Amino acid sequence: MNSTSLTDRLLLANLPVEERANGQRLVRALSLVEEKLRGVEEELERRTRSDVPTISLIGEYLVDGGGKRIRPALLLLASRLLGYEGEIDVKYAAVLELIHTATLVHDDIIDGADTRRGRVSVNRRWGNELTVLFGDYLYMKGMKVALEEGDVRVLDLLADVTLAMTEGEILGAERRGSVDLTIGDYLEVVRRKTALLFAAACRIPAFLVPGAEARADTLWGFGLALGTAFQLQDDLLDYTASEEDLGKPVLSDLREGKLTLPLILSIPQATPAERAAIETVMREQAFVSVPVSAILEIVDRLGALEKARRMVEEYAGRARDLALTLPEGDPRDALLLAAEYAANRRK
Amino acid sequence: MNSTSLTDRLLLANLPVEERANGQRLVRALSLVEEKLRGVEEELERRTRSDVPTISLIGEYLVDGGGKRIRPALLLLASRLLGYEGEIDVKYAAVLELIHTATLVHDDIIDGADTRRGRVSVNRRWGNELTVLFGDYLYMKGMKVALEEGDVRVLDLLADVTLAMTEGEILGAERRGSVDLTIGDYLEVVRRKTALLFAAACRIPAFLVPGAEARADTLWGFGLALGTAFQLQDDLLDYTASEEDLGKPVLSDLREGKLTLPLILSIPQATPAERAAIETVMREQAFVSVPVSAILEIVDRLGALEKARRMVEEYAGRARDLALTLPEGDPRDALLLAAEYAANRRK
Repeated sequence: MNSTSLTDRLLLANLPVEERANGQRLVRALSLVEEKLRGVEEELERRTRSDVPTISLIGEYLVDGGGKRIRPALLLLASRLLGYEGEIDVKYAAVLELIHTATLVHDDIIDGADTRRGRVSVNRRWGNELTVLFGDYLYMKGMKVALEEGDVRVLDLLADVTLAMTEGEILGAERRGSVDLTIGDYLEVVRRKTALLFAAACRIPAFLVPGAEARADTLWGFGLALGTAFQLQDDLLDYTASEEDLGKPVLSDLREGKLTLPLILSIPQATPAERAAIETVMREQAFVSVPVSAILEIVDRLGALEKARRMVEEYAGRARDLALTLPEGDPRDALLLAAEYAANRRK
Repeated sequence: MNSTSLTDRLLLANLPVEERANGQRLVRALSLVEEKLRGVEEELERRTRSDVPTISLIGEYLVDGGGKRIRPALLLLASRLLGYEGEIDVKYAAVLELIHTATLVHDDIIDGADTRRGRVSVNRRWGNELTVLFGDYLYMKGMKVALEEGDVRVLDLLADVTLAMTEGEILGAERRGSVDLTIGDYLEVVRRKTALLFAAACRIPAFLVPGAEARADTLWGFGLALGTAFQLQDDLLDYTASEEDLGKPVLSDLREGKLTLPLILSIPQATPAERAAIETVMREQAFVSVPVSAILEIVDRLGALEKARRMVEEYAGRARDLALTLPEGDPRDALLLAAEYAANRRK
C-alpha cells in the first residue's frame, strides 16, 4: 500500500466537481489514520497467507483488488475519536474487512457475478467450489483473529452481526424476482446487509476504551445511518452512474431480479404496462423484450430518483446529527465527511 | 426424536450379521448418553428456528434428515468418561453438529451432489444461492452458541479446527482430477476433513472438568485415530457397498474426480492401460467409456481393498489402544465399541 492508492480508494477524482473540496478534506481527514490503515493492509496480507497455495493466491488477489476499506477506516476513526492508544483497533479493523470480504465472495456466487470491483470475480476465476470454501475461510479467519484478543463482547457482537447479515441475504434471496416488495422490507435487508457492519465498525472501539461505553449507542446509531445512506446511494448509482465508473453494468440489480430503491418507490404509482415491463426484465433476467431506456423512463416519470436521493440525504443527515453530539475535533470532522461522502459519491 | 430413530442412527440393522452383537452392545452403550442426545436434538431444533421462514424450513429438513450424530455422541461419551455433571456438554455437542452440517451443506455445492443421507440434497432442493447462505448461517450459529459459554479455549479450538477443515477441503479441491496423489496427501486431507472434528469432540469435555486436562492428549489422539478409521471406511464403502445402503451411487467419489484410498493404493502398481482407464473416468466424470466393473477389477487385481481394509483396522486399533489407557467403565467400553463400529460399519 502506498499513499497514492489510498487516495485512489477515497475516489477523489470520481467525486463531482462541486464535491471535490469535500473529497480533498476527506483525504486530509483520513490521513489521521493512514498509518493504521497501512497496518490493516499488512494484517490482511498476513492473514490470507497460507500453506495451501490456492488460499494465498486468492488472498493476494482479494487484498490487491482493494476495496475502499470503509469499514476499517470507520473503526479507526471512531477509535481515534475515543482517544484509544493501543494497537488492537488495527486488528479488529482487519477482522471487519475479512468478514466483509467473505460476504462479497459468497454474494458473487449468489449473484453469479462476472465482475467485482472492476475485475473478474473470484467465482468466475476459480469456480464456485473454491469460492464457497474461500468465503468460509475468510469468515473463520476473521473470527480466529478476533479470538486472539479474547474479548467475548466483541466476538458476540461480530457473531450477531454476521448472523443477521446472512439472514438478510437469505431474506433478499427469498424475495428475489418479486415485485411486491415494500419499502419496509427493502430497508430491513439494507440494515442487515450493510448497515449493521458499519454500526459494528463504529461501535467496537467503545469496548476498547475504559469509560467509552457512554458513546456506544451514538456510535452504533451513527454507523447504522451511515451504512444505510451508503447502501441506498449504492442502489441509486445502479440507476444513475455509468458502467465505467461502477465497474459493473448499470441496472445490474434489476437484471439479477433484485428490486432496489428507485423501482420500489416507482411500483406503487406505476401503470399496469409499466409494472409488466419491470416484471418482464426480472423474469428474463436481461434487457431483451424491454430496453434499459424503458425502465429509466419509468423511474424518471415518477420522480423516483429524486425521492431516492432525498432518502439518501435523510439518512446521511441522521448520521451527521448523531456525529455532532460527539466530541469536537479532527476525528469527528472525518466522520462528518464520511457521511457526506457516503451520500455524494459517484461510484 | 424417539428411541427407535436413535437405534436407526446406530444402523444396527446394517451391520454385518457377525457384527450385530457389537451393534447391540453399541446401542446399549449409547443408552448411557441417550437423554443427552435428545437434548442435542432439541438444541438443534431450537437453534435452526428463525424469523426468516426459509431458515426454519431448511433447518427442519436438516434436523429431521438426521445424521448419525456421531460427533455429539463422542463428545457426550467423553464427557461422561471424565465424570462431567453439568449441561454444557449438550450445548457443545450441538455446536459440533451445527459445524459438521455446515460443512456438509457447502460440500454438496462443491460436489454438485444430488443426494445426501438418501434424500435430495439442500443445494438441489433450494439452489446453490440459498445453500451457500445456509451453510454460513450454520457455521456462525455454531460459533454463536459456543460463545454463550464464553470459554475462549473452546472457541479457539473450534476456530482452528474449522479453518483446518476448510483448508483441507481446498486442498482436496485443488487436487481433484489428479491421479498423482500420494497416500500422504490423502491422509492429510482425511485428517483435516474428518479426523480433526472427531478429535475436537473427544477433547472438548476435558475443558469442562477441573483436572481433566491430563486426559486431553489421549482423548484428542483417540478422536484423530477414530475419525481417520471412520473416513477411510467411508471411502472403502464407496467401492464395496451397494447403492441402496449408501443412499448414494457407488464409486461416486471417482465419478466426481476424487481419488480415494483403494485407487490411491492401486495406481503405483497399475498398468499404463489401467491408469489410463482411471484417468478417463476422472476426466469424463462418469462411467461412459469405462464401465464401473473395469475399475473394480483393477482394485481387485491389485488387492487394494484388502490393503485399505488393513489400514482401517490399523487406525481403529490405534484408537482402541489409546482408549484402553483411559479409566475403565461403561463410557470407555462405549468408546471402544465406537472404534469397532467405525471400522466395521456397512454404511
